[in-house]
Amino acid sequence: MGGCSSQSCHRCFFEYETERMIVVKSKVVGSVFRLIQFLILFYVIGYVCVVQKSYQETDSVISSVTTKVKGTGFTNTSDLGGRVWDVADYNIPPQGESSFFVLTNMIVTPNQTQSTCPELPNQSTICMSDSDCLEGSNDVRGNGIQTGLCMNYSETVKTCEVLSWCPLEIDINLPEHALLVAAEDFTVLIKNSVTYPKFNFHKRNILPDVNSSYLKQCEFNRKTDPDCPIFRLKDMVSEAEEDFQTMATRGGVLGIMIDWNCDLDWPEHYCGPKYSFRRLDNKIPENNVAPGYNFRFAKYYKTTDGRETRTLIKAYGIRFDVIVFGTRSSHFILWGNPSPAPAP
Amino acid sequence: MGGCSSQSCHRCFFEYETERMIVVKSKVVGSVFRLIQFLILFYVIGYVCVVQKSYQETDSVISSVTTKVKGTGFTNTSDLGGRVWDVADYNIPPQGESSFFVLTNMIVTPNQTQSTCPELPNQSTICMSDSDCLEGSNDVRGNGIQTGLCMNYSETVKTCEVLSWCPLEIDINLPEHALLVAAEDFTVLIKNSVTYPKFNFHKRNILPDVNSSYLKQCEFNRKTDPDCPIFRLKDMVSEAEEDFQTMATRGGVLGIMIDWNCDLDWPEHYCGPKYSFRRLDNKIPENNVAPGYNFRFAKYYKTTDGRETRTLIKAYGIRFDVIVFGTRSSHFILWGNPSPAPAP
Amino acid sequence: MGGCSSQSCHRCFFEYETERMIVVKSKVVGSVFRLIQFLILFYVIGYVCVVQKSYQETDSVISSVTTKVKGTGFTNTSDLGGRVWDVADYNIPPQGESSFFVLTNMIVTPNQTQSTCPELPNQSTICMSDSDCLEGSNDVRGNGIQTGLCMNYSETVKTCEVLSWCPLEIDINLPEHALLVAAEDFTVLIKNSVTYPKFNFHKRNILPDVNSSYLKQCEFNRKTDPDCPIFRLKDMVSEAEEDFQTMATRGGVLGIMIDWNCDLDWPEHYCGPKYSFRRLDNKIPENNVAPGYNFRFAKYYKTTDGRETRTLIKAYGIRFDVIVFGTRSSHFILWGNPSPAPAP
Repeated sequence: MGGCSSQSCHRCFFEYETERMIVVKSKVVGSVFRLIQFLILFYVIGYVCVVQKSYQETDSVISSVTTKVKGTGFTNTSDLGGRVWDVADYNIPPQGESSFFVLTNMIVTPNQTQSTCPELPNQSTICMSDSDCLEGSNDVRGNGIQTGLCMNYSETVKTCEVLSWCPLEIDINLPEHALLVAAEDFTVLIKNSVTYPKFNFHKRNILPDVNSSYLKQCEFNRKTDPDCPIFRLKDMVSEAEEDFQTMATRGGVLGIMIDWNCDLDWPEHYCGPKYSFRRLDNKIPENNVAPGYNFRFAKYYKTTDGRETRTLIKAYGIRFDVIVFGTRSSHFILWGNPSPAPAP
Repeated sequence: MGGCSSQSCHRCFFEYETERMIVVKSKVVGSVFRLIQFLILFYVIGYVCVVQKSYQETDSVISSVTTKVKGTGFTNTSDLGGRVWDVADYNIPPQGESSFFVLTNMIVTPNQTQSTCPELPNQSTICMSDSDCLEGSNDVRGNGIQTGLCMNYSETVKTCEVLSWCPLEIDINLPEHALLVAAEDFTVLIKNSVTYPKFNFHKRNILPDVNSSYLKQCEFNRKTDPDCPIFRLKDMVSEAEEDFQTMATRGGVLGIMIDWNCDLDWPEHYCGPKYSFRRLDNKIPENNVAPGYNFRFAKYYKTTDGRETRTLIKAYGIRFDVIVFGTRSSHFILWGNPSPAPAP
Repeated sequence: MGGCSSQSCHRCFFEYETERMIVVKSKVVGSVFRLIQFLILFYVIGYVCVVQKSYQETDSVISSVTTKVKGTGFTNTSDLGGRVWDVADYNIPPQGESSFFVLTNMIVTPNQTQSTCPELPNQSTICMSDSDCLEGSNDVRGNGIQTGLCMNYSETVKTCEVLSWCPLEIDINLPEHALLVAAEDFTVLIKNSVTYPKFNFHKRNILPDVNSSYLKQCEFNRKTDPDCPIFRLKDMVSEAEEDFQTMATRGGVLGIMIDWNCDLDWPEHYCGPKYSFRRLDNKIPENNVAPGYNFRFAKYYKTTDGRETRTLIKAYGIRFDVIVFGTRSSHFILWGNPSPAPAP
């Protein structure tokens, strides 16, 4: 805007300034000018709009996942004898949530009771006499509260006695091969429903053309059955380029990624779930400290005289985490509600 | 910039180019020009700033949810007899996390032990003689490991015997009406605290004007008690436009959405949680394959002679997933820290 | 563009318009002009590019967390007698997920059976005679189904009898000091692996220079051991500026934030996890309604005559939620795939 002194402001308000233009009438200069204009237009439409879709309205997904594992396995160990495992035994937690665990290997310590026993031998627990043990001492890496006594752990080693769940678990003898070998053939049905509230769009991974009888016998295969939502555990681990038996022995975490990214401008049946699999825990072979995945849980019983006893299980296995991705976009709704509030 | 040959570059550097302007002094042209300027200004302030708030600094929410279900129900079944259910019985997992499950219907199979029994009859298990059964065979859709024998399942049907938890669950007789009918009157207290680290803002859904005595007896109602964080299960299902008893019979997943989107520029008490409810599993009636939500879990017991026995429960019910939304924004902090790192 | 009548359109297409320019050759005006140009350039490079990194490609993190708590504690209560607690007892859920709970205080009600007993006395349960009690009535805040009888609760008070798990829990006598005081010295190993699929970047919080023997004895300390992934519970609560024993008595939720935001343009070893801690439940002292965190769970037993009995535990404790942040960015990949689809 031009200068505008206080006296002449009223007149100044109605002034309109414009540039003096030169018009060059030349086919060569004109062609170059139009070409440049076309290139800019092409970039905006072609790259910004079509490739990047910067103009589109987007919405994040609300997802719900339920899972159901099927299959039975058989183990034969000295602690438990021959034993059949079904889903209520090996699937922890049992609720069929988006994260589920399949037990494949274990160290079982049955018939533990609250009592006293000598600690497992290591540098800080080996003792020569009672004076080496401190009553009430409670090492965070130990298994209980020291009683102050020094007891025979074996014929050659004495260790401090502890008050604990005895007998103590000896977890150095992890079976080299996963006990529940049959787990590789277990299957899991994953039900995933997605909602884009802004677009009032609902879809689930059991596609409309899947019927009950197909669902009863199908199994996911990237080439022959890409729409079947039932996955064999071994296949998922293979797709993540891992070996099932290796992973089953020491445990691990496997991600099941379901990608719902798609473009509402295309017909709905183009927009299906894409599955991919990836090992989520340690992927860095040169840093192999603290590998695998395990946890301890116990089943509690009461004896006839009312004493509590438990079976402690150190469970190794594969935790499957279902992770749902999704950003949906459409250019038909340019001025939609910008808040992700779901329509009630 | 004008042309700048290497010889004249020094002189060229201090050149300043500007356009030749024409000043048109006309009230009509001037008025139109100022109107266009005003419209642009109005668009920038009115739409971009006020409606879209593009100028605002935003921050994502850190949320913590705890839930607590209340209520008792009574069931009378042939397997269990008359039995009262309280929260420790029907609320699975019990931890009061953002996802909780209320058991409403079930198939109970008590007194299972590791033993052998004939399989449930279907195409692949019906046999005429032992030669139809393969010892050690383990079908992923079966219930155990085949022993190789063909046994009487009933007076008319013979099936292959399996080593399994016997007696097997017969899950075709799901009660048509949810056993735990009283579940519709159970209530859940949802405690949700949100933090916007960038704005040092904390708030929870129990608002400052809610006191203990109100919290003891209130119940959420969109019109009369919109601030009460205690929800009757039936009301939530109704708001999602579903029928509680239908959902309770076969199970389902219900989303409880808490929306904390609000504008820090307004006084804090304008910024409260907005609740909405939505069924998250199958919403597409024409695709009714594999409906509902159920899972199996077991309670383990030991008999006096040390044998393990269990009660298997196929649990149907409603899983409630609390989903918290939130993007907070303010234009008072335009140059804030762009990383979402919480202030320690 | 100039006016373009339909007749002259062809000629018009090859017209090129440009502005008439004035070149001012003055060192003063030129210097000011160049200075303004430099300031704009400086702003774009310095603020937009270096500080805001608006030019960078970003990717969201895929994270997997496993946790493992260690330590044993001892309690001495009238209900349970002397008892040692190990991880299988106090860590709920036991699966070592990103959210884990450590039991620190409790109200134990052993030997509950399905039977009848008088309700806990309050305004609605106190009765004078059977006519005050309604058979089959089932208050959502009560403990069972009324039988219609009025019974002596104590020598002075009569209440309506209910069918329930009896004896009822009396939860007004919460121990003033957390029973499991030793919990403050428990440690937790947090294993966190992150993946940025778009950048094919993997890292975990057990850094490459950490070896097994260090991991066996280290403990996180912001100054001396900032890379150790083992955290003492008390230290985490202290960093969140809370008192462990206060939090342990009534329960609470503590967030463990792991921040992986970093810049791929820098060498990888600059990019490590940053830990911070924050109490996530009620932070607003003036609104102290419904404080703390607790839930009820039960352990089920069978007596020799087949009757079910249970031990009900109202568990108070600290729930730790591991929350992983991360947006990674790099300017070396400007035209990358904009979808967050993980490479299979």
